[in-house]
Amino acid sequence: MAVIGVLGAGQLARMLALSGLPLGHRFVFLDPAPDPCAAPLGRHLRGDFADPSMLTRLAQCVDIVTCEFESVPASSIARLAEAVPVYPSGEAFAIASDRLREKQLFRELGIPVAPFAAVDSADALADAIARIGLPAVLKTRTLGYDGRGQVVLRSEDQLAGAWTRLGGVPLLLESLVAFRREISLLGVRGRSGETAFWPLVENLHRDGILRVSRCRPGDPAEALARDCATRVLERLDYVGVMALECFDAGDLLYANEMAPRVHNSGHWTLEGSVTSQFENHLRAVLGMPLGGTGARGHSAMVNLIGSTPDPARLLALPQAHLHLYDKAPRPGRKLGHVTVCAESSAVLEATLATLTALVDHGG
Amino acid sequence: MAVIGVLGAGQLARMLALSGLPLGHRFVFLDPAPDPCAAPLGRHLRGDFADPSMLTRLAQCVDIVTCEFESVPASSIARLAEAVPVYPSGEAFAIASDRLREKQLFRELGIPVAPFAAVDSADALADAIARIGLPAVLKTRTLGYDGRGQVVLRSEDQLAGAWTRLGGVPLLLESLVAFRREISLLGVRGRSGETAFWPLVENLHRDGILRVSRCRPGDPAEALARDCATRVLERLDYVGVMALECFDAGDLLYANEMAPRVHNSGHWTLEGSVTSQFENHLRAVLGMPLGGTGARGHSAMVNLIGSTPDPARLLALPQAHLHLYDKAPRPGRKLGHVTVCAESSAVLEATLATLTALVDHGG
Repeated sequence: MAVIGVLGAGQLARMLALSGLPLGHRFVFLDPAPDPCAAPLGRHLRGDFADPSMLTRLAQCVDIVTCEFESVPASSIARLAEAVPVYPSGEAFAIASDRLREKQLFRELGIPVAPFAAVDSADALADAIARIGLPAVLKTRTLGYDGRGQVVLRSEDQLAGAWTRLGGVPLLLESLVAFRREISLLGVRGRSGETAFWPLVENLHRDGILRVSRCRPGDPAEALARDCATRVLERLDYVGVMALECFDAGDLLYANEMAPRVHNSGHWTLEGSVTSQFENHLRAVLGMPLGGTGARGHSAMVNLIGSTPDPARLLALPQAHLHLYDKAPRPGRKLGHVTVCAESSAVLEATLATLTALVDHGG
Repeated sequence: MAVIGVLGAGQLARMLALSGLPLGHRFVFLDPAPDPCAAPLGRHLRGDFADPSMLTRLAQCVDIVTCEFESVPASSIARLAEAVPVYPSGEAFAIASDRLREKQLFRELGIPVAPFAAVDSADALADAIARIGLPAVLKTRTLGYDGRGQVVLRSEDQLAGAWTRLGGVPLLLESLVAFRREISLLGVRGRSGETAFWPLVENLHRDGILRVSRCRPGDPAEALARDCATRVLERLDYVGVMALECFDAGDLLYANEMAPRVHNSGHWTLEGSVTSQFENHLRAVLGMPLGGTGARGHSAMVNLIGSTPDPARLLALPQAHLHLYDKAPRPGRKLGHVTVCAESSAVLEATLATLTALVDHGG
């Protein structure tokens, strides 16, 4: 039995705890929010992620530390790591929380990426556009998520507005490559170097937020995605679950970003895989053998964003599994998800059609 | 979202909470123990199950009450039921907690039972033996579990000792019928009368404690067991999960006992069924649609009794799922269980052989 410290106490920490409690572990969460949704599942230390005294308190009462988000201050990880094992490593967080370093790592490892350039001034933006062309996406290097902190540029006259909106912090310009679909591959690497991958996932976003993830066992892009993810895992001597998001352009996979943590596109693994991403992340960071990552049936996940349909209508769908995060509704907020595990892809798609209608139009 | 009150905060309450939290519910447990294993998953009211002030406190802070054990004082259920819905009903608890009333109900419903007689004195015991014959089992009518509170009688000279050991409380004598195996059938009935059954389970006991449960979809005894269970569910207008334990004598099923709650022989449903017994119990008592009860693969469960093998060795078994209850080791105490879900019965049996060797000989 281990006491596991988690930086962050949102839904990812909550699901880590729900998976770790049956393994006999206990949880301590550090989070500045007064009542974060993982708090009822363990002990909640309320404090800032950069507060040295809170970090010391956390380190003193846990056996190991992991994180539910990537933008952890490097100094916090370093301080914790002096006292207690921290997985994944500070290097993984530093790279994954900076879109420029992430892209540079991908390129260094021979993983295709869309043309990109660092942008630190209005002049540099004009230069980068001249080099990369339009359309392109201007993004903050750090702290962006769910489509926040980015602007799509389609014509020269949008440059000044985009600079006004985002400028002043380090930015990255990326070519908007044409792609057929967005995919993600989730892998897990143990302390001994043992590695396992879940089947590739196809993701559907709307308004910059993930809506639906479909598990695609045997997808033709899977081997390529595994190869890319393996290079990243090995290069970083990574420990834990990592998600690699890619654009599938048909003949090429462009790596978009990596998440050094459990990931929304892996929530289907709770019922759809032999071992969930949450359990395997814990097994990995604790130095335990990894569990199987094969698919069980045909699975997909639908996010519940902003509001939740009548739970009775969701539970009436055969083979639908409801996961609510016990968070107050707010527009654009992830409140829960539903996994569907069906015996055939036809049944899966039929259930998904009913489910997405319920989710989109209330019920 | 509902706040669910549970009488008892042991491992069954713990697994109810682990299944109910993802549905958005919160839990309040009433239990006299200082640190029961469900407590970290909700609010723990420490108090006696018969303490009127604690029952009032519980009723005031929950939407509904259910129980993890059957020997709840009838007066407690009655008091709670004045303030808040209680499922299953007081009648179900009253019958299930008294072996005589249980057997009488089965007989009244036309469900075969081994010959039995109430025993309240040494003379009544001798009379009952004369009528029923030997071998027979002398049992306390109430509060027995895991083989406690019962003595097997094989010869007349054991009568005095058995009476000394158990006499003074109401007893039941039952003929020890010859049987091929012990089975259980778990069913769930919703508030609207909707009923569903999991596949029949074959149970292996040792020293009066359940060791292994194997899920047996399509078992020839299933239809008969369902018929018996349906009669009980309908007669009691039952709401929630119920387990019916039977002796399979080949041509006949003898009903042994019913449990008005989630049951150890249904723990395999956590990974081995579309919906677990814990989730479906909550769906039922909350008036929600029931989830599917079909099997996913070939499943079995092995109890961890008294001590726990090295978790790393358990987790190294492919498709083994570990559930620890966070309880201090003590001889004969249920500390956890392992579910195995395999793609074939051959793989299941091979894994079970390794697993039971680990469990029996440590590791």
